[in-house]
Amino acid sequence: MNRPRIAITMGDPAGVGPEVVMKALAHEDVYARCRPLVVGDLPRLVQAGRLVGSRLAVRTVSGPEEARFEAGTVDCIDLGLVAAGAPFGRVSAACGEAAYRYIELAVELARAHRVEAICTAPISKEALNAAGHHYPGHTELLAELTETPEVSLMLIAPKLRVIHVTTHMGLVDAIARIDAPLIERTIARGRELLARAGFEEPRIGVCGINPHAGEGGLFGREEMDEIAPAIEAAKAEGLEASGPYSPDTLFYRLKGGEFDAVVAMYHDQGHIPLKLIGFERGVNVTVGLPIIRTSVDHGTAFDIAGTGTANPRSMVEAILLAAKFAQGRRKTSGPTAAAHPQK
Amino acid sequence: MNRPRIAITMGDPAGVGPEVVMKALAHEDVYARCRPLVVGDLPRLVQAGRLVGSRLAVRTVSGPEEARFEAGTVDCIDLGLVAAGAPFGRVSAACGEAAYRYIELAVELARAHRVEAICTAPISKEALNAAGHHYPGHTELLAELTETPEVSLMLIAPKLRVIHVTTHMGLVDAIARIDAPLIERTIARGRELLARAGFEEPRIGVCGINPHAGEGGLFGREEMDEIAPAIEAAKAEGLEASGPYSPDTLFYRLKGGEFDAVVAMYHDQGHIPLKLIGFERGVNVTVGLPIIRTSVDHGTAFDIAGTGTANPRSMVEAILLAAKFAQGRRKTSGPTAAAHPQK
Repeated sequence: MNRPRIAITMGDPAGVGPEVVMKALAHEDVYARCRPLVVGDLPRLVQAGRLVGSRLAVRTVSGPEEARFEAGTVDCIDLGLVAAGAPFGRVSAACGEAAYRYIELAVELARAHRVEAICTAPISKEALNAAGHHYPGHTELLAELTETPEVSLMLIAPKLRVIHVTTHMGLVDAIARIDAPLIERTIARGRELLARAGFEEPRIGVCGINPHAGEGGLFGREEMDEIAPAIEAAKAEGLEASGPYSPDTLFYRLKGGEFDAVVAMYHDQGHIPLKLIGFERGVNVTVGLPIIRTSVDHGTAFDIAGTGTANPRSMVEAILLAAKFAQGRRKTSGPTAAAHPQK
Repeated sequence: MNRPRIAITMGDPAGVGPEVVMKALAHEDVYARCRPLVVGDLPRLVQAGRLVGSRLAVRTVSGPEEARFEAGTVDCIDLGLVAAGAPFGRVSAACGEAAYRYIELAVELARAHRVEAICTAPISKEALNAAGHHYPGHTELLAELTETPEVSLMLIAPKLRVIHVTTHMGLVDAIARIDAPLIERTIARGRELLARAGFEEPRIGVCGINPHAGEGGLFGREEMDEIAPAIEAAKAEGLEASGPYSPDTLFYRLKGGEFDAVVAMYHDQGHIPLKLIGFERGVNVTVGLPIIRTSVDHGTAFDIAGTGTANPRSMVEAILLAAKFAQGRRKTSGPTAAAHPQK
């Protein structure tokens, strides 16, 4: 059986995670392309299934080896942490702790090669904090659980792939943070991920950070001092990287197929175009971890959790993409220097 | 006759300006909605017309009063500066000087109320410089010709309207430049322009500058210190302004119709989404001048100038928008304090 095993974490039980997982697992492509296994709470999954009118059964398994991976019956490792009747739409320490434990177990399964990738439903940072787990978000938690010093956030939507040099920090700090080595490592991480997705030698366009990519130094020197040297270094390593390009036209060119991916210097440079075009189909990928991890591109949506109206599109795409990367990794030699930078 | 008179500058004669003007003036909507008049060089227009297979005739007029504004015959104030055979696609002082003179005359006509708006084809900054006119671009030149201390750049495409607090400066400088009074003046200018376009009380969404609009100070304090106070001040003046919103979702909400316009803090924040979606239909509006001015949203495109392949869509939209603003201005009381800020 060739379909890769994917562990799907249920996310914060009070958010839309259980719903979008149940909806996504009813999607015909999912079982055709992978062997999905939920890490969560069985009664909550059953409750969410009822909310969305799901016809799927849910069965408990002790681990991936016991799962049957048959469309129509969801295999679930039931951690028994949250009651089915717990309220939706509220931050709670109990749900934060549960969300943490799902992730912890999924990572363990992936590191032990009992699954080939993990795909995560949304968690609440506040709930995580309330449970005593102090992380800015999923990414930092995963980096710590896998002892990874540096990772990159990539957003993927149809035709659009963007990897970020910096993410969750103020714009002033982001400008100060970008330097040639970090940019070069980010380009290399982007290339490695794309290679797993089947791009033999991906064409990577690199953004400037200033208007018109600095206009020859008139609007800032970061392009000359940091970005261009990083591109040159990547090219010297044989990568098909180019730029720095004017940020306001590069995403249009990406959409038109001129590039396979873009390197964005700061959070909004990449997130504005991706969310504008790919809003409901966006997938978030953490690049540089020793395990493969994809995620939905939305939050817990506490305002609509429990109503059965959440759109599962991003979850479906995230599962399919995890499967694709897992297949791609079988063909490559595993993590490389780019995935584990020496700082 | 109710159609407003619009002076269209031909732009740099070596660029795509003459071509897109001739193509645009063959568009049926143009003469139905306004009375267009080209300020340029007649032989160059005729040559460009041949390049694009135009069936339009071109006639010389000494001023708007002499023009007939009949579809099929282009009225042109011929300045006699550039020969028809001058090469396309090259920077030259002669073409830079010609482009400057077209603008100068168009502004004179507008200030004397002999036309109601101007619409500009692209110029080359390098050619302008070679001719001894040292401006970063069109906007600064127009501000000086009309003695206007402060203007804002607005980009308009179908469904998308974005006015910028800062534009052509490095990102570090842009962050330092934004302060509450400037943001408030920009919101007011945006409102005034939209009122002319028929929005009674436009709903204006204001971007943060940091990821997640600063996430409560965690990713920067500009939202708390400058942006939020500006929005409060605008609301106190009765404007329907709100924010600061997370930049990565606001443009999606704008596209969905939740707002009539967005205020962007820096060049790429507004230009990336606008160019991604509205690339070939974007129009650039200078807001705050005592005259109405719209412009194409592209450059001279020297690489394709003279080949007859330039897309005139942005030029058509720019002319129609100038006509719309001119009609709107007839109904309002003309420039107000917001258009002429006291510094």
